[in-house]
Amino acid sequence: MNDVKKAVVDHPVHDLIAQRWSPYSFSNRPVDANDLLSLFEAARWAPSSYNEQPWRFLVATQDDPKEFERLLSCLVEPNQAWAKHAPVLVLGMVSLKFARNGRPNLAAHHDLGLAVSNLSLEATARGLAVHQMIGILPDKAREVFAIPVDHEALTAFAIGYPGPLEGEMGQRDQSPRSRRPVNEFLFMGGFGRSMNP
Amino acid sequence: MNDVKKAVVDHPVHDLIAQRWSPYSFSNRPVDANDLLSLFEAARWAPSSYNEQPWRFLVATQDDPKEFERLLSCLVEPNQAWAKHAPVLVLGMVSLKFARNGRPNLAAHHDLGLAVSNLSLEATARGLAVHQMIGILPDKAREVFAIPVDHEALTAFAIGYPGPLEGEMGQRDQSPRSRRPVNEFLFMGGFGRSMNP
Repeated sequence: MNDVKKAVVDHPVHDLIAQRWSPYSFSNRPVDANDLLSLFEAARWAPSSYNEQPWRFLVATQDDPKEFERLLSCLVEPNQAWAKHAPVLVLGMVSLKFARNGRPNLAAHHDLGLAVSNLSLEATARGLAVHQMIGILPDKAREVFAIPVDHEALTAFAIGYPGPLEGEMGQRDQSPRSRRPVNEFLFMGGFGRSMNP
Repeated sequence: MNDVKKAVVDHPVHDLIAQRWSPYSFSNRPVDANDLLSLFEAARWAPSSYNEQPWRFLVATQDDPKEFERLLSCLVEPNQAWAKHAPVLVLGMVSLKFARNGRPNLAAHHDLGLAVSNLSLEATARGLAVHQMIGILPDKAREVFAIPVDHEALTAFAIGYPGPLEGEMGQRDQSPRSRRPVNEFLFMGGFGRSMNP
């Protein structure tokens, strides 16, 4: 992997978590169909509110240029610019209501995140990488893929092997990862009160 | 671990993903403070839209019964019934707007899911388990912990070592895990068209 992308941690974490990152540059090496199924199997086993499993995915690969182009057209242009080189694109959708009672599922977006996180770590374990996007065109996606009214597209993500560190996208991939420290988001006793002042 | 809780997979996935599960029964063994910090460090390195890192957490442990009780009071009663035995409770909150421009962050709930998923898998790697809940009282949480208007509480979760498989909660933990098969949520070419018919 690209060493600059391994998280510089303040507290030890599992390698899979430290090594996961979101490339802009993808290799043109295709993703094996069995690897792809294991990624979605990983998503499958995420937890969800009332085990509703509200996530739905629509996949397109470069093997089918017409389908790939249809999915690519549902991304905002700045995302199309790099995502068009990825071997696999996926649209992340949710069911907005509980199947058992038709009531709104307030956890739907959250639970899509749980599923895609599993998928991303399974990808990391296989030398693959996932780059997620919120910059999509949900209305376009609804039209192109006939998404029913009680479902919606929220995200998209590219899957593939990290690519060369040259060119515009490769340059973007050379910047180190950064995060706010734990004490800026972990509180105790009241909002904003750092646990470790 | 509780063998009945290991996912029975259709396609191979990493052990961390197959072994993660959500217990109702928790041991009274406390969680080491360093383990807890590593769990939040794992959350820290999740991806997020524009690297906003919208997740915020408020933690309470049984070591401080008053704080624990305050957090417990923000759960709906059916969740209080089992969560009161966990050694650690956490409230999951989000910042609703991007810090850089004040615009609504449509990925906030989703990205909280990404962070808590990392946390849960780090827990699994350490023999701990996490049980997430959407059944909380967000208005009560806002009042109790002075959550500002541009943030909200969405979830809570219990952290601890899985407990005995006896009693009401232990019984609940003896049921096998189930999920819909991949071909029910993975589509190609259009919504609802299974990739593997």
